[in-house]
Amino acid sequence: MHILVSNDDGVYAPGIVCLAQALFRAGYRVTVVSPDRERSATGHGLTLHKPLRVEPASLYYDSQISAWACSGTPADCVKLALDGLLSSPPDWVVSGINQGSNLGTDVFYSGTVAAALEGFLNGIPSMAVSLTSFTLPEFDPAAQFVCDWLAQHPRLPQPMMLNVNVPANTTIRGVVTAPLGVRRYIESFDKRVDPRGKTYYWIAGEVVDSEAAPDSDIAAAQAGYITMTPLHINLTATADMAWLQNQAVARFEP
Amino acid sequence: MHILVSNDDGVYAPGIVCLAQALFRAGYRVTVVSPDRERSATGHGLTLHKPLRVEPASLYYDSQISAWACSGTPADCVKLALDGLLSSPPDWVVSGINQGSNLGTDVFYSGTVAAALEGFLNGIPSMAVSLTSFTLPEFDPAAQFVCDWLAQHPRLPQPMMLNVNVPANTTIRGVVTAPLGVRRYIESFDKRVDPRGKTYYWIAGEVVDSEAAPDSDIAAAQAGYITMTPLHINLTATADMAWLQNQAVARFEP
Repeated sequence: MHILVSNDDGVYAPGIVCLAQALFRAGYRVTVVSPDRERSATGHGLTLHKPLRVEPASLYYDSQISAWACSGTPADCVKLALDGLLSSPPDWVVSGINQGSNLGTDVFYSGTVAAALEGFLNGIPSMAVSLTSFTLPEFDPAAQFVCDWLAQHPRLPQPMMLNVNVPANTTIRGVVTAPLGVRRYIESFDKRVDPRGKTYYWIAGEVVDSEAAPDSDIAAAQAGYITMTPLHINLTATADMAWLQNQAVARFEP
Repeated sequence: MHILVSNDDGVYAPGIVCLAQALFRAGYRVTVVSPDRERSATGHGLTLHKPLRVEPASLYYDSQISAWACSGTPADCVKLALDGLLSSPPDWVVSGINQGSNLGTDVFYSGTVAAALEGFLNGIPSMAVSLTSFTLPEFDPAAQFVCDWLAQHPRLPQPMMLNVNVPANTTIRGVVTAPLGVRRYIESFDKRVDPRGKTYYWIAGEVVDSEAAPDSDIAAAQAGYITMTPLHINLTATADMAWLQNQAVARFEP
């Protein structure tokens, strides 16, 4: 089984090295195609206006892991792997292990999730894996979870996209599935003045999870569980379509 | 009524100038906060690792339109406007008018859609408006459609996110609502060698709309209709959650 591994923290980030090595040791063929530097929060961006560079990541820890560093976004990396670098589609795309959670509304901004979603948009079973801590880089339990999951579910009944968050530094209480919650951030743009007297802003902002639904992935992660949330890509709001039809906007009939 | 206008083609692109002017002439208070250069296909990316600059777009066509050029992505622009620049939330966020359609699966990559989605994620009625042509910059009918829509629906029963595509250079046959289709691209990475002998790639790729469902926004746009597709942000795949539960992954119960 061939697994394409990517992330948004960059090709030499400890989370992806841990993941790639664990998968390789578990007996899988592993190809890493990942950004050449940190590309967090790039969402599902693509690089259309400048060319992409891709170089062998020759310092990779195990020479039998084929690894590439790409100048683009996580979505670029997976697109380039599927359409340019690999001679046949991988069996899975696994993105991560991200340092920091990707829960609830985070999935819209996350490059980790975008890499997996790009695999899923191409019909390949995909998984995004994130550690719910920015400070404790204990990636082994998350890597072990991925290996166990793939051993038990090498093939799925149909392609799925699984968003997985793994607690760090706690006794993991188990594995649950939970719907995405809504994550609110108190945005506080930090306004500063540079030495030349010009204004600039940093996006700051703190998570406020108090509004999270009690059965959401956010609550489950806080309670110490590994969360698995399958995602879909049908963004059509059916209820709002009905409202539009009541406003005399007819539904298109071919 | 106060309308925040953004886009991904840049603050001086003809589509956003046409839109802002039309809204201003229709009697709305208009604030433009938009990228200082083209930022197409940036998805829902955010700029977290470098500061954002924002400058008055002083060459803007009508001095009564408050306009800002921001160094970030479309999502950055809307975030900065909502949390840093505006003293109170706008009544609508309108993003566009994009040159080129944003139909079906395009919504995952589009900066135009991301700007509107960022408004919607903040609970504000939002609309992304795109022209279904890259070559014919006839923005007036699309701008007129937005003005007419807002005049007829200044308030919605609840915040909605409307993805709108307007045909160019055809007699517009009417306005319809249609679900997002699935857009397939034949990806063809264009591999080249630079003067120093190093390889680089361009993302190329052509749209193949032949697979589009016959009732989709793609088909409706091709048939010459203005399409309105309301979007939601609940990405949880409920059916796949049920499958996970059958695989002994229990649903989280708080």
